[in-house]
Amino acid sequence: MARTVLPGGLRVVTEHVAGARSASVGLWVEVGSRDEPALGAGTHGAAHYLEHLLFKGTRRRSARAIAEEIDAVGGDLNAFTGKEHTCFYAHVLDRDMPLAVDVLGDVVLDAVMAAADVELERDVVLSEIAGRDEDPEDLLADDFDALLFGAHPLGLPVIGTEESVTGMTRDRLADFHARHYVPARSVLAVAGNVAHAEVLAAVEAAYGSRLDGSSEPWHRRADGDAPGVPGERLSVRDEDTEQAHLMLGVPSLRRADERWPALQVLSTVLGGGMSSRLFQQVREQRGLAYSVYSSTTGYTDAGALAVYVGCAPERLGAAAAVVRDELGDLATHGISEAELVRARGQLRGELVLGLEDTSSRMTRLGRRELDHGGLDRATDLATTLERIDAVGAGDVAALASSLLTGPRTAAVVGPYGDVDELPDEVREMVES
Amino acid sequence: MARTVLPGGLRVVTEHVAGARSASVGLWVEVGSRDEPALGAGTHGAAHYLEHLLFKGTRRRSARAIAEEIDAVGGDLNAFTGKEHTCFYAHVLDRDMPLAVDVLGDVVLDAVMAAADVELERDVVLSEIAGRDEDPEDLLADDFDALLFGAHPLGLPVIGTEESVTGMTRDRLADFHARHYVPARSVLAVAGNVAHAEVLAAVEAAYGSRLDGSSEPWHRRADGDAPGVPGERLSVRDEDTEQAHLMLGVPSLRRADERWPALQVLSTVLGGGMSSRLFQQVREQRGLAYSVYSSTTGYTDAGALAVYVGCAPERLGAAAAVVRDELGDLATHGISEAELVRARGQLRGELVLGLEDTSSRMTRLGRRELDHGGLDRATDLATTLERIDAVGAGDVAALASSLLTGPRTAAVVGPYGDVDELPDEVREMVES
Repeated sequence: MARTVLPGGLRVVTEHVAGARSASVGLWVEVGSRDEPALGAGTHGAAHYLEHLLFKGTRRRSARAIAEEIDAVGGDLNAFTGKEHTCFYAHVLDRDMPLAVDVLGDVVLDAVMAAADVELERDVVLSEIAGRDEDPEDLLADDFDALLFGAHPLGLPVIGTEESVTGMTRDRLADFHARHYVPARSVLAVAGNVAHAEVLAAVEAAYGSRLDGSSEPWHRRADGDAPGVPGERLSVRDEDTEQAHLMLGVPSLRRADERWPALQVLSTVLGGGMSSRLFQQVREQRGLAYSVYSSTTGYTDAGALAVYVGCAPERLGAAAAVVRDELGDLATHGISEAELVRARGQLRGELVLGLEDTSSRMTRLGRRELDHGGLDRATDLATTLERIDAVGAGDVAALASSLLTGPRTAAVVGPYGDVDELPDEVREMVES
Repeated sequence: MARTVLPGGLRVVTEHVAGARSASVGLWVEVGSRDEPALGAGTHGAAHYLEHLLFKGTRRRSARAIAEEIDAVGGDLNAFTGKEHTCFYAHVLDRDMPLAVDVLGDVVLDAVMAAADVELERDVVLSEIAGRDEDPEDLLADDFDALLFGAHPLGLPVIGTEESVTGMTRDRLADFHARHYVPARSVLAVAGNVAHAEVLAAVEAAYGSRLDGSSEPWHRRADGDAPGVPGERLSVRDEDTEQAHLMLGVPSLRRADERWPALQVLSTVLGGGMSSRLFQQVREQRGLAYSVYSSTTGYTDAGALAVYVGCAPERLGAAAAVVRDELGDLATHGISEAELVRARGQLRGELVLGLEDTSSRMTRLGRRELDHGGLDRATDLATTLERIDAVGAGDVAALASSLLTGPRTAAVVGPYGDVDELPDEVREMVES
């Protein structure tokens, strides 16, 4: 792996993958939905809107030309927007890496953002919001974050709202773009059958004069208190769904916390696989649900540990009782040595098995640069594996005791008019 | 790549992937939902039910032991059921290949199918059906197949119905299992950092006495007329969704048809990527929908070419008109040379880029053995690439003219009480 900081503050990180025939190129920008409120009212959903708009044409390329150039070489070109970053990426044959680097830089830094396209994409984004509204799990995740993070910008849905997208103006988008989509906030991550020097040459050929000035790379930093511990801790969205969808959780750790590997072990034992407590108790032993799992999310200054259950409404109470008992047991007794050994093995295996293609390697590379600001030991796979192996049952018990005894937050999507219609077990979990 | 047929008719196909650290192991059984009606009433959804039930324990392993053994090595163990085959698979580190081979054989051939587990899994499957019912695109696909294939078993939903799953008995499942889940109907496909001889040794150690007898491998064969050309060609499912979901299509080619590569080019030009006609016309030029694409499906004796659009209900008519015009133009004028060149490049690139991990290679290997009955030239990647390059604009035009001028079928999920409430453009597309 290699890293170069170019003039203007653009960071280029690469990993050569022997044997691969492809290259995955990601241009990561440290901008996301949590940056929107700082620009004032009316920018809510701007980062995601821009993810759409930037592909609509640059000074050198029409939207059609962008699509045709990448499709002609069989590449994949897309983007995703998060709360703290946006990634524009392409997956191409190795020989087409320079094209991918060129197109991505063109799109991100040099988009035209024509007024007519702002209007066209407004309808497309509204259509995407309508699709989200049809997906109970997507709605649930947004509701849960809104509760857990309260009024903090991390509580806002990335996609915006129908209202905010309807009211978005080109000026606001252009302002947001000018402020955030700059080389100093960007990381170009490339993994595949390419050399670092080849990538640097492609970047210089493509971005040229954009890379000047003395800007230092910009890092998002944790400052002030972690968001969270809101007022309301239980929400219900009344939807005429077949199933009840429950997400229950607690604030956990910021991403850079040294206890992160212990959190992964905790979540794995709780609901990370088929042998996890929740899968065994909720699905295998009782047949209460098809889908049940736990998950972790980490940001610069906050994080979450959450459990999801989707089940028949008449079983929600029973499922919630099992979740309550397992959380209580973990908080009080921690995990067994057998669970520890199995969870470490699972995490190690998943990590290695999850890095088989260049896209997953590019994603890891980019995320690590954003999370840790520079290739350090933490970037190294061997080091990550060592940190997993170093987790002890005592570390997990201490973490479980500290995280799982605090206030809990729960969101429900399903056929319930209000919180009073929820099963007692759900209400008690949040109140206790 | 190597292939061995073992006593009892089990086919073992392997591909060594240099540089990989993992092995993907798939035990494919040539059984799916289309085999269910042959056993009489009440077996509808049996293949999918068994996909669940077989993991509940074998004579040597409890459900928990199965989960723990695979989780402990970080592996992934799962299965999927289709209309013509079911695949039980594991993705593990290369050194754990023998474990994966052992567990999969144990699960598929030697499951206990305890009566209590039949009851527990009934609830889980019903919960999965409830989840499908919440997903308009899943519902739509099932409705479309029901129309396109009519009373033929290919028209049945893989997952079964609430009624059929509620009425399923252990006897029916056991009978279905005994008849179909046998070595002669199975293919063990392994891709990864393992040698063919190692796989054979693992199979012999694990399956031992099950591999005897003189059974020949069983192949599903096309016999009789292709199913399709049903009576009803338009259906509406009235759902209170935010969007209208339309799937429109025609019968296309059986999977082994030599014109299959031309069909892929046709579908790619129509709606296979960002530069495709439908993406450009429906989304980029008019902003009518977030999601629009075409797809192909191929079976032993039938196939489909379909277009999907999800859009605001008030735009369904306009979107359908664009689809109608593009289908008409393709049927009359075929594709341009520039489209041909781009589509071939896209298909070649997607094929190569899609084979980066061992799981995708295992899937290709297993599917090819099932589709073509033996490793032949068609299995070879270079040959597949050659066949794509050999497609001419004339081939595509001939295919478009033959497929797109016949009767069309359309299913809609959305806020419409009946077909009379649909926009005229949708009704006309099917009637014309």
